[in-house]
Amino acid sequence: MPTSRQWLLNGHPRGRGIEDGDFVLAEKEVSAPGDGEILLKTLYLGFDPAQKGWMENIADYVAPMAIGDVMRGSGISEVVESRHPGFAAGDLIMGSTGWTEWHVSDGTGLVKIDTALPPTAMLSVLGTTGVTAYCGLFKVARPVAGDTVLVSGAAGATGSVVGQLAKIAGCRVVGIAGGEDKCRWLVDEAGYDAAIDYKAGDVRRQIRDHCPGGVDVIFDNVGGAILNDMLGEIATGARIAICGGISRYETGSLPAGPQNYFNLVFRRGTMAGFIVLDWAAEFPAIRKRLEGFVQDGRLTYREDVQQGFENAPATLKRLFSGQNRGKQLLQL
Amino acid sequence: MPTSRQWLLNGHPRGRGIEDGDFVLAEKEVSAPGDGEILLKTLYLGFDPAQKGWMENIADYVAPMAIGDVMRGSGISEVVESRHPGFAAGDLIMGSTGWTEWHVSDGTGLVKIDTALPPTAMLSVLGTTGVTAYCGLFKVARPVAGDTVLVSGAAGATGSVVGQLAKIAGCRVVGIAGGEDKCRWLVDEAGYDAAIDYKAGDVRRQIRDHCPGGVDVIFDNVGGAILNDMLGEIATGARIAICGGISRYETGSLPAGPQNYFNLVFRRGTMAGFIVLDWAAEFPAIRKRLEGFVQDGRLTYREDVQQGFENAPATLKRLFSGQNRGKQLLQL
Repeated sequence: MPTSRQWLLNGHPRGRGIEDGDFVLAEKEVSAPGDGEILLKTLYLGFDPAQKGWMENIADYVAPMAIGDVMRGSGISEVVESRHPGFAAGDLIMGSTGWTEWHVSDGTGLVKIDTALPPTAMLSVLGTTGVTAYCGLFKVARPVAGDTVLVSGAAGATGSVVGQLAKIAGCRVVGIAGGEDKCRWLVDEAGYDAAIDYKAGDVRRQIRDHCPGGVDVIFDNVGGAILNDMLGEIATGARIAICGGISRYETGSLPAGPQNYFNLVFRRGTMAGFIVLDWAAEFPAIRKRLEGFVQDGRLTYREDVQQGFENAPATLKRLFSGQNRGKQLLQL
Repeated sequence: MPTSRQWLLNGHPRGRGIEDGDFVLAEKEVSAPGDGEILLKTLYLGFDPAQKGWMENIADYVAPMAIGDVMRGSGISEVVESRHPGFAAGDLIMGSTGWTEWHVSDGTGLVKIDTALPPTAMLSVLGTTGVTAYCGLFKVARPVAGDTVLVSGAAGATGSVVGQLAKIAGCRVVGIAGGEDKCRWLVDEAGYDAAIDYKAGDVRRQIRDHCPGGVDVIFDNVGGAILNDMLGEIATGARIAICGGISRYETGSLPAGPQNYFNLVFRRGTMAGFIVLDWAAEFPAIRKRLEGFVQDGRLTYREDVQQGFENAPATLKRLFSGQNRGKQLLQL
């Protein structure tokens, strides 16, 4: 049996950013798969800002992570040996593999990859990322045709899908991202109607310029000052879906709350958070729908594929420095 | 025709509390009612925190108030002379009379008072106050039996009705108010299950003690630090109705936003603002329902009746110092 390298959690990054010392590299001899088990070789890992929240354990909506645990994360693996009737050698699966090169599983929670798209799509546009965009937009924010939809973190893996889905739904879509490069991509490639570069300053004024009738729907991935600016420009009856708060993850503590929450009263607005796992039963159907949009040419996606298992911690940190272009992946 | 004293707006209290100089007393000779008009003598004025917002003109959800305008406010008047087919001398009406002793009206927006309760009920439990409690609770927050409902500003005119309606709906109800006196009234008279005195400190811990399973429904009248503490203790699927922000009115500027808004994500919560006027078409039916609850003995209410037209500005200021006990009224 192979020896597997593993990244173990070695620190809780509470009140601060992720540091190299939060992980430690270990080696483990993998045991042979028993009856009903499969041996999996990790091919790709997927990265998500929520992983910092898991490391922090500040909330209890997922099982806590303890020091010494294999770092939790989703990945794509190949079945190398199967003693499980549901899997055969050569099958590709997507699951919460963790940061390990090899592992043995009883198949619980694994999804066999069966898509006409490249398999990495199961970590990006068809993965939690894409499904989060779909559920947050269509189950929480519920835009109607003609709405002006404003997306923060718009060039990110989730945000770019949100904007394109809103376009398919007949909305006008404006995205907020950091830097000219990302903004150009939003308009030229992802089909956004307009992009706001928050690094160019005065986000509130830029929102007003691009959304003169007010913002009907907000899909927020960042929180902090940008959420506050967005709430300042909502239209009557606005719906706000809170998906993430990368500004929270960056600082490692809670940023100031949005003062403009009181606009929810003046504008009769509704702001809701969600956890995409609540719709897990619908994921297969939602994936089919997203796959169809990609095949029709109405939905494009980007993947940022780094290389080498040893680079897993550095790859996670890319999310918090805004370096990634599209869904952050690592090929082993 | 009589000469009428009137309080005119003389300053916009933006970024500060209300000051005496924000009003100026004037006199005006009232013209005789023309065809289709009525002459009204004001008997009572009703006071509401929203009046400071009107004076500030920081939002545009009601028509702006200009310097020199008669101060806007609701009141109860007696018809002294009528040249309108819909009104007779001696009728009592409720309407947006403004801070004036006498005025002439064409009847627009006036509601004839027809209740088995004392007429002042039309400014309190059957007025905008009671209807706001009803709509915010049953149309926005939508509690179900068994929910734990937490109300801030609970001893106020709106808050005390909210808690009692939630009890009628089978909920467990906890109120937050300032001082032992108000807290005792909540439990002994208004039927709250428990009361939290924010002046006794550590509101968050007190909420946790009284709502050990988390808070399912929040009805917020105050905003600021108390809203933040309440959001820190929400249960999964919590619904938060934002009714007011008296802490905003007090300071005259926007207080810090609630950092704990991100709990909306962890707990899949929904926070919504509302303007009760959106349900104006239903007010008569809602008033009948509230009146029935009072007559059944299931809903009690308090009125704090000050005396004398010259005291109108001082009476408004009572709302922001927490002096009022129940709905703040002024008898002329």
